[in-house]
Amino acid sequence: MNINEIIKVKRDQKEMTTEQINFFVKEYSNGNIPDYQASSLLMAIYLNGMSEKEICDLTLAMAESGEILDLSEIPGIKVDKHSTGGIGDKVTMVVMPLVAACGVPVAKMSGRGLGYTQGTVDKLESIPNFRTEIEMDEFIRNVKRIGISIMGQSEKIAIADKKLYALRDVTGTVESIPLIASSVMSKKIAAGSDKILLEVTCGSGAFMENEIRARVLAQTMVNIGKLAGKETVAVLTNMNQPLGKYSGNALEVIEAIETLKGNGEPDVTRVCTVLGAYMLKLAGVGDNIANNIKMIQSKIDSREGLEKFREMISRQWGDSRVIDDYSILPKAEFRIPLTALEDGYISKIEAKNIGQAVVNLGGGRYKKEDKIDYSVGIEMAKKIGDEVKSGDTLLYIHASNETQGLMQIEMLRKSIEISKEPVEKQKEILDIIE
Amino acid sequence: MNINEIIKVKRDQKEMTTEQINFFVKEYSNGNIPDYQASSLLMAIYLNGMSEKEICDLTLAMAESGEILDLSEIPGIKVDKHSTGGIGDKVTMVVMPLVAACGVPVAKMSGRGLGYTQGTVDKLESIPNFRTEIEMDEFIRNVKRIGISIMGQSEKIAIADKKLYALRDVTGTVESIPLIASSVMSKKIAAGSDKILLEVTCGSGAFMENEIRARVLAQTMVNIGKLAGKETVAVLTNMNQPLGKYSGNALEVIEAIETLKGNGEPDVTRVCTVLGAYMLKLAGVGDNIANNIKMIQSKIDSREGLEKFREMISRQWGDSRVIDDYSILPKAEFRIPLTALEDGYISKIEAKNIGQAVVNLGGGRYKKEDKIDYSVGIEMAKKIGDEVKSGDTLLYIHASNETQGLMQIEMLRKSIEISKEPVEKQKEILDIIE
Repeated sequence: MNINEIIKVKRDQKEMTTEQINFFVKEYSNGNIPDYQASSLLMAIYLNGMSEKEICDLTLAMAESGEILDLSEIPGIKVDKHSTGGIGDKVTMVVMPLVAACGVPVAKMSGRGLGYTQGTVDKLESIPNFRTEIEMDEFIRNVKRIGISIMGQSEKIAIADKKLYALRDVTGTVESIPLIASSVMSKKIAAGSDKILLEVTCGSGAFMENEIRARVLAQTMVNIGKLAGKETVAVLTNMNQPLGKYSGNALEVIEAIETLKGNGEPDVTRVCTVLGAYMLKLAGVGDNIANNIKMIQSKIDSREGLEKFREMISRQWGDSRVIDDYSILPKAEFRIPLTALEDGYISKIEAKNIGQAVVNLGGGRYKKEDKIDYSVGIEMAKKIGDEVKSGDTLLYIHASNETQGLMQIEMLRKSIEISKEPVEKQKEILDIIE
Repeated sequence: MNINEIIKVKRDQKEMTTEQINFFVKEYSNGNIPDYQASSLLMAIYLNGMSEKEICDLTLAMAESGEILDLSEIPGIKVDKHSTGGIGDKVTMVVMPLVAACGVPVAKMSGRGLGYTQGTVDKLESIPNFRTEIEMDEFIRNVKRIGISIMGQSEKIAIADKKLYALRDVTGTVESIPLIASSVMSKKIAAGSDKILLEVTCGSGAFMENEIRARVLAQTMVNIGKLAGKETVAVLTNMNQPLGKYSGNALEVIEAIETLKGNGEPDVTRVCTVLGAYMLKLAGVGDNIANNIKMIQSKIDSREGLEKFREMISRQWGDSRVIDDYSILPKAEFRIPLTALEDGYISKIEAKNIGQAVVNLGGGRYKKEDKIDYSVGIEMAKKIGDEVKSGDTLLYIHASNETQGLMQIEMLRKSIEISKEPVEKQKEILDIIE
């Protein structure tokens, strides 16, 4: 088999065979196919697309290019949860303990933040001593013992995907639905769970700004899951503004805990209960979503979810006093308000810029090696649809360095539009694709 | 400027600016842009095409990536001639001395063969001691003294094109009209002549099998020439069968000399006189093509073209006795006939296979470093439209090694189709594009 011939197949809009895709992924991982041939094929895929069969073949080949986790020691149906990323998205930290509190085992592998989105692993690491770099046997032991554990994405998972993603990043081939879908799903399949719940974000703070593209991505991933024998449901969520109040690592931990205490922002609580309900359904707990939502809500009301979160923190060496005492978290020195210059209604928030401001303040990474300042972030005081008067605070910048904080004002001001006419509030859940 | 952003421009079907194209070509030549980004851009160009302005920018940038020859010392209008390659295409060896005999300076840089086509430089080197690896000053001195010289393609010309061509060859991006056109024209522009005559071949023995694509290629190159201020004319020639009788290095030298003596095959003579006539027109000798053809023909009849060829051979250290004595050329030991198995009319010749047979016999190169056996080749006894009886010889295989010769028979037999119905002879010249 010859990679140049495989490139020509895709270039000429024909379908690659399973053998051709396996050959490409295997030989590329092994270093036998150079980057310059891989990138030519990636661009042909970007421009000519892929059939469902090709996407599934690529996903499986990438999953098999690294370790496949074996979670069979853990009894019960394991449901993984993945978000395509957003601003202020602390959902994982809330949903996981709630689902675990319902008796469904939660074994979650999670990533770090890069660019304008932050990752759950970074957020949890703002809790003093919390460790996500744990070994596989500890991870499994935790789930068996207390029903929940989280670990950082293993470097040994889906090796081809890692190599291809790095190449896509510098060859203009990131924004391709077949490539995004197979990248996400290869990691999920390798992570060893039985079923998968996807949170596909959509809007100004998401990777997919366009709702139609987000729907296609969601449907593509659901189909891959089906073909790979892992039932998958996608919840399409609105990311036209940050989710909840806070964006930033320690600030989001606080908001997650508040949500588990029943004091959550309505949008966060809503997304978390719906996602949790679908995870329960996938785990075979119950088919009726309204009932499942009630069950999740009951674990908030009873504080069983909160206690599960405390248990997880302790077990992973973290300081679980954080549940009752936020002062042990890193705290930014400055809280700088941004105020409205006119009366009206918030009509638009460039959520990506909120995420970018968090990175600029030191709370995210430009490149992998960057250290994170967990304390910084953005606190939204108003959301889309809210009425504002001139002088009202729109948001607060939590900064460790005052100048750095003030430097974000111009961009943030441009990111919030105010209209004279009343504006409707945003819906949190756009659709369920199963 | 950032190459990833430039890739996205072409990927998204927008037009690259002159600055972006210059940046790409310059930084790629310098090694500052890696192959994997260049190949991604090449595939985007392959699939999304290029505007006329982009093609011209790319051509000029590639021309400027190496030395630009300065032929200004040579008085008069210098006309270059280029063929997109074919089988049995000995036209350059015939046209050049004829045009030079009309008083138009001919300073020709020419390539070697690779794959199933052979190059003029290789053909001339089958003449004992003939040198094409001459220095620039000798080349110019020759043209000034006797009006004609030929030299091998300089390694210093259009460096970016060389590097990009090698990359295209392994990334499925060879067959792109904008990339082919800019590759050819960048070398022609760097070769320093004032005007350019292109022989764009088309058919089963040409790079462009499809006539529509050949026309688009021709028109694209003519437009580049116009935009670059170098008037360009393209003659679309038929390559559905080898041109003339012989394919193979020394054999083609003999056929070229015979044509200059007035004993040429009608198709060779026709193509040579028409191409010569357009070169004269470009050189400002006369606008009337019919008159120009007569002038070229008169240089055959008077043997002035033949004498010019003899002079060139002598001047480039070759043994010019070859003009009168073909026995000084390498000669293959075996001449193996392939005979018809049925009566009918030749309806089709897979000309590429004739070229491939020459390579298989040792007369061409699989890779750059291969040595050539000048003596071998294929001699056509019948051409498309000719009537044949069972037992008639279709062609002769000139081989140095009998087994190697016999091994070509099966492929060659499959390459010639015989129909029961009479078949029209092929037209040599399909069109003139100016």
